[in-house]
Amino acid sequence: MTDLLQPGQRLARGVCRHLRSLDFACVEEFTPDRGLRVDVMALGPKGELWVVECKSSRADFTSDSKWQGYLDWCDRYFWAVDSAFPCDLLPENTGLILADAYDAEIQRMPDLHKLPAARRRALTQRFARAAALRLQATRDPEMTLA
Amino acid sequence: MTDLLQPGQRLARGVCRHLRSLDFACVEEFTPDRGLRVDVMALGPKGELWVVECKSSRADFTSDSKWQGYLDWCDRYFWAVDSAFPCDLLPENTGLILADAYDAEIQRMPDLHKLPAARRRALTQRFARAAALRLQATRDPEMTLA
Repeated sequence: MTDLLQPGQRLARGVCRHLRSLDFACVEEFTPDRGLRVDVMALGPKGELWVVECKSSRADFTSDSKWQGYLDWCDRYFWAVDSAFPCDLLPENTGLILADAYDAEIQRMPDLHKLPAARRRALTQRFARAAALRLQATRDPEMTLA
Repeated sequence: MTDLLQPGQRLARGVCRHLRSLDFACVEEFTPDRGLRVDVMALGPKGELWVVECKSSRADFTSDSKWQGYLDWCDRYFWAVDSAFPCDLLPENTGLILADAYDAEIQRMPDLHKLPAARRRALTQRFARAAALRLQATRDPEMTLA
């Protein structure tokens, strides 16, 4: 199973496992808004929304021109990288998670930028619907949509 | 697969399929609050929250002493039953869905009792976390919790 995952997805799995242990529920490859897709969106026990972008290599990071657009869609923003990643590349004031396919650890907690209430509400609802629709597709794969 | 389901779960599957076609995302066996468990909680495109209780027989209905407690946890409340169910038993002003394991149809739309904003927010967040945690358990069955 692990071997079928792309490098970034392997990191995401470890990230989700660790965040789960912190009582965060995660959705991978989540679309907060049209044209945006984050690797991991995590919803905490108090409604906190965290975004984690997983970078498997220097090239993976330097080719990403979209990440600053994600800052407005979370309370805290993190990078997840493996132990070989050149962490000096990463901008200050963003979070850092060291991950592999099996687990992860938060190395640097980023600043909190609390979402406005209306956006938090809309985002939580979108998260809820995305998770439930995917769960239903898993539970009932024979379901067809008219 | 269908044969492994209990009668009420068969109805729930048909209900979820139909609600999906109405753009509602569903979570089955959802706990809106401690000590309560509803058969289907559905979240609509505008944030609507509907509860559907599935009753496979007269006895299943008459032995249910909890359903009135669910009214405070949704905008609309429905029963789902099969075509053999004695529908006269069901209280007025509740919704009625005719279902089987494969599909369903709304027969009677219940009155709208809009949830207070704070409860809607809390309930949507709980729904989001429940769906995402179950999805993660499905995606990553090897995950273990410390």
